Amino acid sequence: MKIVKVNLGRRSYDILIDEGLLDRSAEALKQRDIGKRIFLVANTTVYDLYGADLEEKWSKAGFSVIHLLIPDGERHKNLQTVENIYTYLIAQRADRNSILAALGGGVTGDVVGFVAATFMRGVPYLQIPTTLLAQVDSSVGGKTGVNHRLGKNLIGAFYQPSLVCVDTQSLISLPEREFRAGMFEVLKYGLIYDLQFFETLYDHLEEIKKRDPEVLETVISRCCEIKAEVISIDEREQNLRRILNFGHTLGHALEAATEYERFKHGEAVAYGMLATARMSHEWSSLSADSLAMIEKTILEVADLPGAEDVSFSKILECIKSDKKRQDDQIVYVLLKEIGKTDIQSGLDESRIESIWKETVARVAD
Amino acid sequence: MKIVKVNLGRRSYDILIDEGLLDRSAEALKQRDIGKRIFLVANTTVYDLYGADLEEKWSKAGFSVIHLLIPDGERHKNLQTVENIYTYLIAQRADRNSILAALGGGVTGDVVGFVAATFMRGVPYLQIPTTLLAQVDSSVGGKTGVNHRLGKNLIGAFYQPSLVCVDTQSLISLPEREFRAGMFEVLKYGLIYDLQFFETLYDHLEEIKKRDPEVLETVISRCCEIKAEVISIDEREQNLRRILNFGHTLGHALEAATEYERFKHGEAVAYGMLATARMSHEWSSLSADSLAMIEKTILEVADLPGAEDVSFSKILECIKSDKKRQDDQIVYVLLKEIGKTDIQSGLDESRIESIWKETVARVAD
Repeated sequence: MKIVKVNLGRRSYDILIDEGLLDRSAEALKQRDIGKRIFLVANTTVYDLYGADLEEKWSKAGFSVIHLLIPDGERHKNLQTVENIYTYLIAQRADRNSILAALGGGVTGDVVGFVAATFMRGVPYLQIPTTLLAQVDSSVGGKTGVNHRLGKNLIGAFYQPSLVCVDTQSLISLPEREFRAGMFEVLKYGLIYDLQFFETLYDHLEEIKKRDPEVLETVISRCCEIKAEVISIDEREQNLRRILNFGHTLGHALEAATEYERFKHGEAVAYGMLATARMSHEWSSLSADSLAMIEKTILEVADLPGAEDVSFSKILECIKSDKKRQDDQIVYVLLKEIGKTDIQSGLDESRIESIWKETVARVAD
Repeated sequence: MKIVKVNLGRRSYDILIDEGLLDRSAEALKQRDIGKRIFLVANTTVYDLYGADLEEKWSKAGFSVIHLLIPDGERHKNLQTVENIYTYLIAQRADRNSILAALGGGVTGDVVGFVAATFMRGVPYLQIPTTLLAQVDSSVGGKTGVNHRLGKNLIGAFYQPSLVCVDTQSLISLPEREFRAGMFEVLKYGLIYDLQFFETLYDHLEEIKKRDPEVLETVISRCCEIKAEVISIDEREQNLRRILNFGHTLGHALEAATEYERFKHGEAVAYGMLATARMSHEWSSLSADSLAMIEKTILEVADLPGAEDVSFSKILECIKSDKKRQDDQIVYVLLKEIGKTDIQSGLDESRIESIWKETVARVAD
C-alpha cells in the first residue's frame, strides 16, 4: 500500500492507494476514528459494483451504514441533487459526526464533497474515487461543487476530505475510453512537474494501458504526490496551483463549445495540452524534440474525437466566460521544458488560432 | 474608531467600529485592496435607509457597484434566495475578484456570506451589519448559512469576511424591540467571559438603552473582542467555541417550539440564560448573589413575551433534534461564576423542567 500525505495543517489527510483496498477500508477508518455512522453515496452502477459489498464489510466491522443512491451523469451535478441529499440526511437524523462517503467518479465526489462542506457547516468526508481521473485529480485539492444552469462548477467550496481510499482494482471495470481519458491527466503531472515521471510514463505506456495494478499504484501515487505538493503550497489557487490548469484553458473551452457531449474531460484536455505544447515551443523555451515527444505520447494514449468543425472563435468566447480569467487577460500555462511551467498572458490570439488549427489537423491526421 | 483584529492566520480580518463609518468605508476598502467591483446585497428597507447612499459614495470613490435586493425575513433565508443571487451574479459576469457586500441584519449576512463562501468556491466578502445582534454576533466567527425546510441553519459553511464595517449610527433606526433583543446577546459576552464587562453593562444599562454612540462603540467592540478571542482559539466549534452557546440550547428550542414567531432570537436566549443561570446555581458554583444580579439585569433590559403556554416536553423535543447534540447527550453551558463557564451534560431532565417552569413564572411576574 502507498500512502500519500496531503499536508494542509489541521486539514491534513492521507490518501491510501492499494489493490483490493476496499476490502480493508474499515480498518483504515477505525484507526483514524473519524466517526461511527456512514452515509454512503453512489450512483446505481457503482453501488452495484462495489457499494453493496462495502456496506456489508463496514457493517460487519461495527459501523452503522446507510446508503443513498444519486442519479448518474453530469447533468445531475446541480443544486437539486445537493438539496435532495440534504433532505435525506436530515430525515435520517445525520449529525455533525456522521461521515459522508462518496463512492464513484468525479461527479459523485464533487456533489458529495459539496454536501459535506455545507451540511451543518461541514461533516467528515470520505472519498473513494473509482475512476482514474477522480483518483489522480479530485482526490487531492478539496475542490467540490456543482454546476449552475449558466455554467459549470460555478457553485462550490474548498473542503478537504478526512481520508481518501483508492482501490486500483476498481479501475478494472472502467470503460476503455474512460480509462484512456484519465491517462491524459496522468501525463499532465509529468509535463508540468516531473520530467523523470513523464519519461517513465513514456516508457511504460503499454503496461499502463493494460491496467497492471502494481504499475497503476505507482503511477497514481506519484500523481497524487505531485498534486499534494502543489496544493500544500497554494491551497486556494492564488498562484502555483494554476500550473495544474496546463491544457485546461483550451480544454475546458473545447468541452464547453461542444456542450460537454463530444469529449470526455481528459480528451478535451489532451487537445489543450497538444496546442499548449506548440504554444510553448513558440513563446517559451520548449524544444522541438520535447514537443515531438509530448505529441507522440498524447497521441499514443488514445484516439481523440475530431474537433475540425468547432470554430476557434467559439472556443475563445468560452475561454472569456470562464471563471479563471483575471481582468480579461487570458492566462496560459506554458512549458519551459518538460517538468517546468511558464505562465504567460497577453499572447497573440490570431497566432493561437493558427496553432489550434494545426493541432486539430495533426490529430485528424 | 475602534479596530478589532480577528486572528485566524491567513483568514484574519479587521472589524472597524465607528459612528458614521459608512461615510468613510470606501477608504477602508481601498486601503485593503480587496477588489474594485462590489455587489451590494440588502433588503429594500435597509437599502433605502443606507444602501443608496453607500452605493453613491463607493461609486464616487471609483468602485464599480451593482446592488441586488433580496426579500426580507427569515422565511427567505433558504437555498432559493441563494440560487437567485448566484444567477444574478453570473448574469452580471461577477468573477472571483468581485466583492460581495452584505448590508443588513443577520439574515442578510448569513445568506450573502453563504453565497460568498460557495460562489466560484469563494469570493471576497464584506460585512456591514446594521443590527445590534448582527454587529456583536454574526460579524465574528464566519458562520454563514441558510435554513432547510426541515430545520434552521442546517445548510452552511464557515467562511470569513475580508472586512467588517460596523456603523453605530445605523442602530439609531433600529426598532426598540430589536435593539433590546440584541442587548441580551451583549450581556451573554460578559456572563461567559468577562465579569468586569458585565459589571460595566450593569452600571450603564440606561445609557446603553439610550443608544449613546460612544457607549455603543465601546460595548460592541468589547463583544467582538471576546468573540474573536474565543473563535481564534476554536474556529470550528470543536470545544471552547461552545461557550458562546450559553443560553442557546434552551433559547433555540424555545424559538423552534414557537415556530420562530413569538420571540426575537435574543429574547429566547434571555429565557435560556435565565434558566441556565438557575441551573448553574444548582449544578455549578454560581452564587445566589450572582444569580440575582444576572436575573435583575436581564429582566431590566426588556419585557419578554410570555412562555407559560409552551410545554417543556416540546422544548426538550426541539433540543433533541438540534444539530449540536452529541451522541444524544444534551450539553449545557453553565456558569461557575460570572465570567467563567462550566460545560456539563447528563443533567436531570425533570429538575431542568422545574427550573424552566420557575423561570417562566419569574418572567411573567
